[in-house]
Formats: sequence, structure tokens, C-alpha cells
Amino acid sequence: MPDSPAHAPMPGAEVLAEPMRSRWSPSIFDDAHRLEPAQVAALLEAARWAPSRGNMQPWRFLVAERGTPAHAVLVAHLRRGNSTWVPRASVVFLGAAQFAADEAGEGPDQPEYSFHDLGQAAAHLTLQARAMGLHAHQFAGFDRDAVAAELGYPSYVRLLTGIAVGVPGDPATATERDRSKEERVRDRRPVADFAFAGSWGTPWDGAPEGTG
Amino acid sequence: MPDSPAHAPMPGAEVLAEPMRSRWSPSIFDDAHRLEPAQVAALLEAARWAPSRGNMQPWRFLVAERGTPAHAVLVAHLRRGNSTWVPRASVVFLGAAQFAADEAGEGPDQPEYSFHDLGQAAAHLTLQARAMGLHAHQFAGFDRDAVAAELGYPSYVRLLTGIAVGVPGDPATATERDRSKEERVRDRRPVADFAFAGSWGTPWDGAPEGTG
Repeated sequence: MPDSPAHAPMPGAEVLAEPMRSRWSPSIFDDAHRLEPAQVAALLEAARWAPSRGNMQPWRFLVAERGTPAHAVLVAHLRRGNSTWVPRASVVFLGAAQFAADEAGEGPDQPEYSFHDLGQAAAHLTLQARAMGLHAHQFAGFDRDAVAAELGYPSYVRLLTGIAVGVPGDPATATERDRSKEERVRDRRPVADFAFAGSWGTPWDGAPEGTG
Repeated sequence: MPDSPAHAPMPGAEVLAEPMRSRWSPSIFDDAHRLEPAQVAALLEAARWAPSRGNMQPWRFLVAERGTPAHAVLVAHLRRGNSTWVPRASVVFLGAAQFAADEAGEGPDQPEYSFHDLGQAAAHLTLQARAMGLHAHQFAGFDRDAVAAELGYPSYVRLLTGIAVGVPGDPATATERDRSKEERVRDRRPVADFAFAGSWGTPWDGAPEGTG
């Protein structure tokens, strides 16, 4: 793998359009920055227009702005690796999916699509952030059951992720560990490992099927 | 709800950046159009660079180009509502997630993140398509178990969706039902229904928490 830092495009990524091309997950946020309500609204609007199976829109987001009680609940339950950088972000969007029937007996019959579609909404929010000059870093390392309980989540919803959004901060104010995360090389599986043609396991090779 | 057709931006969506803003799911594809291999490669590259929990990249895509045997397998198992429009698209990307341990005993401990992250990769692929002047329409209405079995998917993977990609076709060549889909009004839940602040169920109202 080439030895390029986290924020540098990796070989292959140069074919991507913006905002996909310049999306990455910083770990040093400016802890004095705040999002305007209109910016939060635009990020939620991006999630809102994500596609979903049967247009069920199974996602729910709790907006935890730095300095609010809900944010403090999250911070108290962050796993160690996230406890330094997450609290500095301007806002954390807590992403949850309805995976079972609610009090009215309404809900998805196939929970895997709820998680899938929460992922799509999270991606749209994250990419909208990048397009607005912001950065987003998704994380799952927190005590999700404890946070969900303290914030009153019902049993038919699963809290899965946080999306930390903000602007880059001064590396001098970050921990050594978080600075090293920023320099970590980004890598991904080769396309041939995840893209097939013809049948499972046969790498898609860029040629029409049967001629490769 | 305003009476605007599927392809018109809805109120609220005007704050979105491209390609999120102009993404929608057409049902009339040009059945003579083909994607260049470089276009397929760019779409796969977009999926590749999506974020995932622990960088596990649990997604797998099978590239089913119109006219290939794998495409024929899919077409044979489409549900009725999809059997007219899906076959016309240039390529269908079949999206699957590894949700359990593989033959080597390696795999995710929490399958919901596999589905979540497949959704993110699907969103990146879909948005990259839009940025390239293409359109994508995701669908789940097909006999996924039959397709997975015929294409050799292993038991630790779940086939969830198809992403039909192509360019718009002539409405005169489409069925009445598919034409009516194109004119269907797009709608979504209000933001207050899915975005909370403070605790579960309290709508985020755009004001700092506690002052709204």
C-alpha cells in the first residue's frame, strides 16, 4: 500500500466525483466551532432525501450539540479510543434504526433493510457535510445500550452510530494518539476482492462477461 | 404534499449539494445503453471508498450487465412490479453483506453494521452514478434466496438489493405502470418526525437545546 496519510486521496480514488473524492474521517476537530442551525438543518435534509426500501425511512437521528445535556450523556459512554476526539466535534448525530414494530404495531418485516437504509441516510448526511466544507467522522465505539437508555430510546429502535461533524482543529491541541490517526494510511480491499461477475467469487475484470 | 413529479426537487431539497440534490430513482431506462467498463470501475471505486466500521468493508457487489447470464438469472426472479423496468437498465449491481463468519472463521460480530455499511457503499455508488450523468434505482423486490443460490453465494453472505444503473429511456417505450411511477410524487417524513434533540421523541427545532 502506498504510504500516504489519511487525508490524501488513495490510488483509484481520483476517478471519484466530489464530495465522495475528498471525504475522509478526521480525528482532530476544532472544539470552539459551532454549526449554525441552518447547517444542521441542511445535514438532516440530506439524510431525509436518502432512498429507502418502500420509502419507509427507518432512520432516526438525535442531534447532540457540544455543550448540551444529550452530548454529555454520549461523552460519558464513549469508549476509550473515542473519548478524546469525539467530544471536540461541533455536533454528533446519533443514528438509530427502527428494526421492529412500534407501539402501534407498525414496523419493518425485514430488519436488515432498516440498518441498510440508516447507512444510506448516514452516507448522505456525511457527504452533504463534506460538500458544505465540513467534515464527518462516523464511530460506533460507545456504550450504545447505556446511551439509548439514558436518552429514552424505545425497544424497537437500535442505536448504532454517531456521526461527529465539525471543522478541522489545531493538531497541537490534540493527543498524540489522535494526531497519529490523522497520519494513518487509508486502505481498502482491491476491487477484485469485492466485485464479482458471472457468479460469486469470480472477480469482475472490466471486460464483458465471458471474454475476460 | 406538493404535487410535483418524482424527478422534481421537493421543498427542502434545494439546500442539498450535488449529487444528492438531483438524485432520484427513475423507472424508465434506455435498454440500448451500455456502460463502459471504465464507468463500471468508477462506480465500484466509489463503493470501495465508503467508510465502514473498523474498515471491515463488508460489502460485495456482483456486476450483472444486461445481456449476461447473471443478469438473466436476476431477471428470472424479479417480482412483478420490477419485471418491466429493471431488465432495461444497463447494469445491475447486486449488493450483498457478509453478516457471519466465513470458512476461515472471520467475520463481523455485529451483523447490523454489515447491513449498515452495505447501505453506505450503495449510497456512494448511487451518488457517484448521478455525478457521472447516470441514474440509479435501488430495488429489493426479487427472490433473493433463489438468485443467491443460482449465483453461488455462500451462507455467510446476505444478498439484499439490486442497484439498477443506466440512462433515461423513451417513456413511449415503457409500460403505463412504469410511466406512472415516474410521475409519482416524492415525499418524505417531516424533519421533526425523525430528528430529535435532548432525548428521544423531542423534535429538533433548529434552536439551541433548551431555548426552543
